[in-house]
Amino acid sequence: MSSPVLPSHGRVRPLGLTQVSITGGFWGSRQAVNATATLAHCESWMERLGWLANFDRVADGTTSPDRPGWSFSDSEVYKLLEALAWETARTGDTGADAAIKRLTGRIGRAQDPDGYLNTCFGHGGQPPRYSDLEMGHELYNTGHLLQAAVARLRTGARHGEDDLVRIARRAADHVCRTFGPDGLPGICGHPEIEVGLAEFGRALGEDRYVEQARLFLDRRGHGTLKDISLGRAYFQDDIPVREAEVWRGHAVRALYLTAAAVDVAVERGDDELLRAVERQWERSVARRTYITGGMGSRHQDEGFGEDWELPPDRAYCETCAGVASIMVSWRLHLATGDVRYTDLIERTLYNVIATSPSPDGRAFFYANPLHQRTPGKPADPDEVSPRAEAGARAAWFDVSCCPTNVARTLAGLHGYLATTDDDGLRIHQYAPCTIRAELPGGQEAAVEVETDYPETGTVRVRIAADAAAPWTLALRVPAWAAGATLIDDGRARPVDPGMTEVRRAFRAGEVITLELPMEPRFTWPDPRIDAVRGCVAVERGPEVLCAESHDVPGQLDALAVDARSAPQADPGGARVRGRLPAHADRPWPYPQAAAAPAPVAGAGWFDVPLRPYHSWAQRGPSSMRVWLPVSPPPEGE
Amino acid sequence: MSSPVLPSHGRVRPLGLTQVSITGGFWGSRQAVNATATLAHCESWMERLGWLANFDRVADGTTSPDRPGWSFSDSEVYKLLEALAWETARTGDTGADAAIKRLTGRIGRAQDPDGYLNTCFGHGGQPPRYSDLEMGHELYNTGHLLQAAVARLRTGARHGEDDLVRIARRAADHVCRTFGPDGLPGICGHPEIEVGLAEFGRALGEDRYVEQARLFLDRRGHGTLKDISLGRAYFQDDIPVREAEVWRGHAVRALYLTAAAVDVAVERGDDELLRAVERQWERSVARRTYITGGMGSRHQDEGFGEDWELPPDRAYCETCAGVASIMVSWRLHLATGDVRYTDLIERTLYNVIATSPSPDGRAFFYANPLHQRTPGKPADPDEVSPRAEAGARAAWFDVSCCPTNVARTLAGLHGYLATTDDDGLRIHQYAPCTIRAELPGGQEAAVEVETDYPETGTVRVRIAADAAAPWTLALRVPAWAAGATLIDDGRARPVDPGMTEVRRAFRAGEVITLELPMEPRFTWPDPRIDAVRGCVAVERGPEVLCAESHDVPGQLDALAVDARSAPQADPGGARVRGRLPAHADRPWPYPQAAAAPAPVAGAGWFDVPLRPYHSWAQRGPSSMRVWLPVSPPPEGE
Repeated sequence: MSSPVLPSHGRVRPLGLTQVSITGGFWGSRQAVNATATLAHCESWMERLGWLANFDRVADGTTSPDRPGWSFSDSEVYKLLEALAWETARTGDTGADAAIKRLTGRIGRAQDPDGYLNTCFGHGGQPPRYSDLEMGHELYNTGHLLQAAVARLRTGARHGEDDLVRIARRAADHVCRTFGPDGLPGICGHPEIEVGLAEFGRALGEDRYVEQARLFLDRRGHGTLKDISLGRAYFQDDIPVREAEVWRGHAVRALYLTAAAVDVAVERGDDELLRAVERQWERSVARRTYITGGMGSRHQDEGFGEDWELPPDRAYCETCAGVASIMVSWRLHLATGDVRYTDLIERTLYNVIATSPSPDGRAFFYANPLHQRTPGKPADPDEVSPRAEAGARAAWFDVSCCPTNVARTLAGLHGYLATTDDDGLRIHQYAPCTIRAELPGGQEAAVEVETDYPETGTVRVRIAADAAAPWTLALRVPAWAAGATLIDDGRARPVDPGMTEVRRAFRAGEVITLELPMEPRFTWPDPRIDAVRGCVAVERGPEVLCAESHDVPGQLDALAVDARSAPQADPGGARVRGRLPAHADRPWPYPQAAAAPAPVAGAGWFDVPLRPYHSWAQRGPSSMRVWLPVSPPPEGE
Repeated sequence: MSSPVLPSHGRVRPLGLTQVSITGGFWGSRQAVNATATLAHCESWMERLGWLANFDRVADGTTSPDRPGWSFSDSEVYKLLEALAWETARTGDTGADAAIKRLTGRIGRAQDPDGYLNTCFGHGGQPPRYSDLEMGHELYNTGHLLQAAVARLRTGARHGEDDLVRIARRAADHVCRTFGPDGLPGICGHPEIEVGLAEFGRALGEDRYVEQARLFLDRRGHGTLKDISLGRAYFQDDIPVREAEVWRGHAVRALYLTAAAVDVAVERGDDELLRAVERQWERSVARRTYITGGMGSRHQDEGFGEDWELPPDRAYCETCAGVASIMVSWRLHLATGDVRYTDLIERTLYNVIATSPSPDGRAFFYANPLHQRTPGKPADPDEVSPRAEAGARAAWFDVSCCPTNVARTLAGLHGYLATTDDDGLRIHQYAPCTIRAELPGGQEAAVEVETDYPETGTVRVRIAADAAAPWTLALRVPAWAAGATLIDDGRARPVDPGMTEVRRAFRAGEVITLELPMEPRFTWPDPRIDAVRGCVAVERGPEVLCAESHDVPGQLDALAVDARSAPQADPGGARVRGRLPAHADRPWPYPQAAAAPAPVAGAGWFDVPLRPYHSWAQRGPSSMRVWLPVSPPPEGE
């Protein structure tokens, strides 16, 4: 089945990409831009920079030490292949299929006879194979190759085991031979091979690949890799995954590893491991996650900080960590059916994934800070951006993991909208779409979802086929949606956050409507999050809002808002009452006094427009803040 | 004259290290530990790690690509030499003199016939000379060699131009030939050669070295170096020094460069350049400096952040940046006589320099954060610490710039206590000491300072010799010392912050007493410093205080203090009223509500002891915070 993730069992089952179709709206337009702009954009940059030609050089025996790109550039090609494969299932796009064949041909020529496939190691003028497991990314690259092959397998009954799958099989077999129980006892510094092997094993029904993933997982956390200056927590080799209490180190590494841990736990029935991962999720979400769903507090190691270390300005919140967080939460949801995971997926989709690409799909945020003090410089669309922190979306990066990660996520996004279980159909994310799902017993649940969510909160689910027997339609009421209403057959009833269910033998044409409350609302930080003490955020539906210098006269530095007045609805965002108190410019910024420096009374209140965070810097470089300092009432007010 | 910095002219003149002697107290004990423990500790580690043997390998022609140490390890040897030289002047220590000769012998053997001296480039198996100006540190190393020679020159009339000076002269001549007006148009990625050349020129009275420093300065800021992923601001090659508005990029680089800019401005009478540096100091101190005087907000590039970006937890505040900040402020003070510079020096001495070394002088902080959430792991005294952020002082580091920088600063610290001008003697930093300064006209000002400052605020200046004519005794009243009193001949009068003066023909035995107010006081952050909004700090005299987990039951995470009650004096620190409100552990840390989560009433108030920040983690690993969240009054209180 054409599903990005397909466990052998679990509390709920995913739908295939051909069973769900997003027909427009917020995500439909993004899928269209991804298909028509981003995929070609990525291929063109990789051609231009020689990342594709690296495969030709291996094939032609013309490798040399001055290879272009980082050691992980192969993986970008594989992630593009994965995106192209999901795209073929989404639209039957023959162009995407042709691109897959074109790229596969070049990749295949570079594979060594024993299955080893890498353009950075093991050939003329290059370091030997597996000579830098810590930072060399060889197995990481292979993991992404396997993921691409999984996508090809699951979207191509008509392809059978095509060239890409055969290449991946040879590469996977080489890995199993080299790193199997009797082979090298190593692991890769960047987890990814584990999740690639697990899914590849599931897609082919060959358990030995899952077993190799388990072996890599169990080897990790024992100081298996050499220490580095950032410490072994950087690549999660400090603590075995089943003993860890929280995510730490490089965020993408931590989350790819965790995704694989869920896969292995599910395939092995290892409930202890699954529970360990759930505990890590719980503490990391409760103490190390931004309001946007973003993860990664530190630039230095692209990593998680400590509990409560969540600076908005230096938030790294790498786009790829958002992708990886969804990978983890989706797997945990499939295993458990717990709505907290789909809640976090929604938050991450609207506030990390949607934030990265520009409307034209040809520029991307790498880091997603929640506070930008000085507007970034507009990126030159013809230049590689060396820096992840420019405050402006860039066409391509020196380390360019995010564009292809966005591409593969968007191409398969409809796979994350709904699931089935023994009772019926469960809808988790709201977009205008059609869903035709086979239920147990051979019955089909067919619905059309009509909504312009998140512009409004009305979600109409129209039954598209008569049912022979009762089934359950379950709709997710997001955790933020206190006061939601379900309207069924003209009767409205309040529904609590969680899954709300309607069960009967539905008739075609029936409409079940979910009304989600879209009034903007104040959200406060836990008092232990030091970096945003004394601040408030505003959210509307699933969207985090922000203030941007385009809309605020003067300096955002000085903005303070009145938390006594509730935020007001405003088209596409909200308004709060704010002001810009003047601050004395002191030669030394730490005045000594009995009380805090008082705000200057007289600074007038005005309406501060807030817009969705995901749209920031689309009107040009700007300063921006999600967390708004609360103005203490001045004397006499 | 044996002064660490000796401009040809300026508003005030430094004293030589033989004219001032610290006789005990806070700094006297630290100088003694430095002399008896730290100097040998540094030499022993450099021997053990092969950083000294690197010189032997060059001399013996046994270099290879696997040289131990970073490219800048030579500079640590030179900084140790500089420290040893100041130490010979401080105590006449023949052991230090012998160590200088021993080290100089090994260094000299490694010098190439044309004066080039570097153990990492230009010899068998090594990259060619000057093949990596961006990151190779060759000229940086030479700069520190020149500084060591300056110290030797200024402390060794009896040595004349000894071997170290001759080695340095050959190295400096090589640099001038190679990078002169007709040579390579390059600069070093890490500024230091500039300040080394300027001082070497001044010490020898040879202007061509100053001129080469000027040339390096003027070449910088035009994209002279290759771009790097952190951007050219990292090494201040983004904007010419005379056009810059603020310090940015790597803090130590920025400050070493600025020190050289002051030297060149003074020697060339370039008031425009001097004023540019003063403006940079003003804005950087007003917006990019921690309450401790620490500089550098970011780990990623060891660099300054943007204006108001001053996170306490991820504060880098490298010890070396504190040393470099003092270098800059001292030069600006000598040029202008402005007390704001000596105010900042005091703050940096007590809260950065004093924080780094352990009481035994054999372990050091590299980074100096203002908030430690989880106690560090005790460092193994026999291991090199790979990390700058361990939360525990370490014996030595992989990058070990800080120990030798502390050593050279402490060894020459008495050179920063006082100056003279045309009117008399000016005392800036208070320590028990004797000062014998020659005044214009040949008169001698001899005083003894008696104080246990900063334990108490009483500073007695006892005149030690009759004066033939009136002279002025000027005493710095620190900016923080509102309410200070001067007692002269039994009469007390209030004195304002700034320099306070007494002028007459002093008689031996007269005592002028300065009483500085040592009651602990609240200090507040500028409201634009986002990371410490809603917090207060407590200072006492020149010391910033902190709360440490050793003294606070439960979690410092939850500590909140009552800002309505003034801090109370406590031996060696202060007490504030605080409590540990319980916080609900939420699965998602951003509750939505009309108002901020209220503190749980009923958490009892208790006295929170605060101790000097510089002493933190001396009682074992601890969590710690300088900025204390202010508890809002709970309902009903």
